[in-house]
Amino acid sequence: MAAEGILAVRQLQASDFDKGFLEVLAHLTTVGDVSREAFEEQLKRRDAAGGYHTVVIEDDGRIVATAAMIVELKFIHGCSKVGHIEDVVVDPAYRGKKLGIKLIEALVEAARGAGCYKIILDCNEANTAFYEKCGLTRKEVQMVKYLDR
Amino acid sequence: MAAEGILAVRQLQASDFDKGFLEVLAHLTTVGDVSREAFEEQLKRRDAAGGYHTVVIEDDGRIVATAAMIVELKFIHGCSKVGHIEDVVVDPAYRGKKLGIKLIEALVEAARGAGCYKIILDCNEANTAFYEKCGLTRKEVQMVKYLDR
Repeated sequence: MAAEGILAVRQLQASDFDKGFLEVLAHLTTVGDVSREAFEEQLKRRDAAGGYHTVVIEDDGRIVATAAMIVELKFIHGCSKVGHIEDVVVDPAYRGKKLGIKLIEALVEAARGAGCYKIILDCNEANTAFYEKCGLTRKEVQMVKYLDR
Repeated sequence: MAAEGILAVRQLQASDFDKGFLEVLAHLTTVGDVSREAFEEQLKRRDAAGGYHTVVIEDDGRIVATAAMIVELKFIHGCSKVGHIEDVVVDPAYRGKKLGIKLIEALVEAARGAGCYKIILDCNEANTAFYEKCGLTRKEVQMVKYLDR
């Protein structure tokens, strides 16, 4: 493992499929059977849509942490933008090294650069303390409806 | 005012600028000084990005309710999608007529059609009862960070 300070945040690349990007996401939730082709096509669709920012941290040729943001174009607040932070996860072997904070800081900077007036995210109760360390405060209630497809 | 059952949900159109679309949004939050040109350009940017669904209800030539959704392309859950519902508002003079539920139902159908495995939204404590009537359940905590621009 590289010295902690060396681990840099960078954008997700198609070649990260071979570096365990999906395996890191699997520490967060179900990823399922995603082929290289499906991954690359989804990455292209996100790039074509614009507004997606996906950051990763690599160590020893493996992705060890990732977080994503989608920038929403609003009509309110003078046609402003909001960054939605999603799918934040650090490999369990790399926790406690402030990698999560580095990812959030990178996305906050990207949101600022994109002209967002705020960033928002949803997390479970146990993770609120982490996001408070990242400078976020609790605001509303997330509601959900799962869809039968 | 038309009979309640007549009011139909439809997609936002550029001409809704002249029908008070922004004035309805102003019942939700600050809209600010948005020119026709700025509105039309943001609408075009949203259309070009894809994944935006904005529904409105019109009565007597005026927009009286609106809600929006942005469909996020995920890598998780087999490269699935999530619908983020945003900016739901009904003109105060039209509240209690189930227009809000009609808008949410339309967006849930759009999310289903787009292949979303769930829809999510953030609301304040006072509005959770309304969304429970729409079939949503409470899940997580929304966190926010406002950005100095």
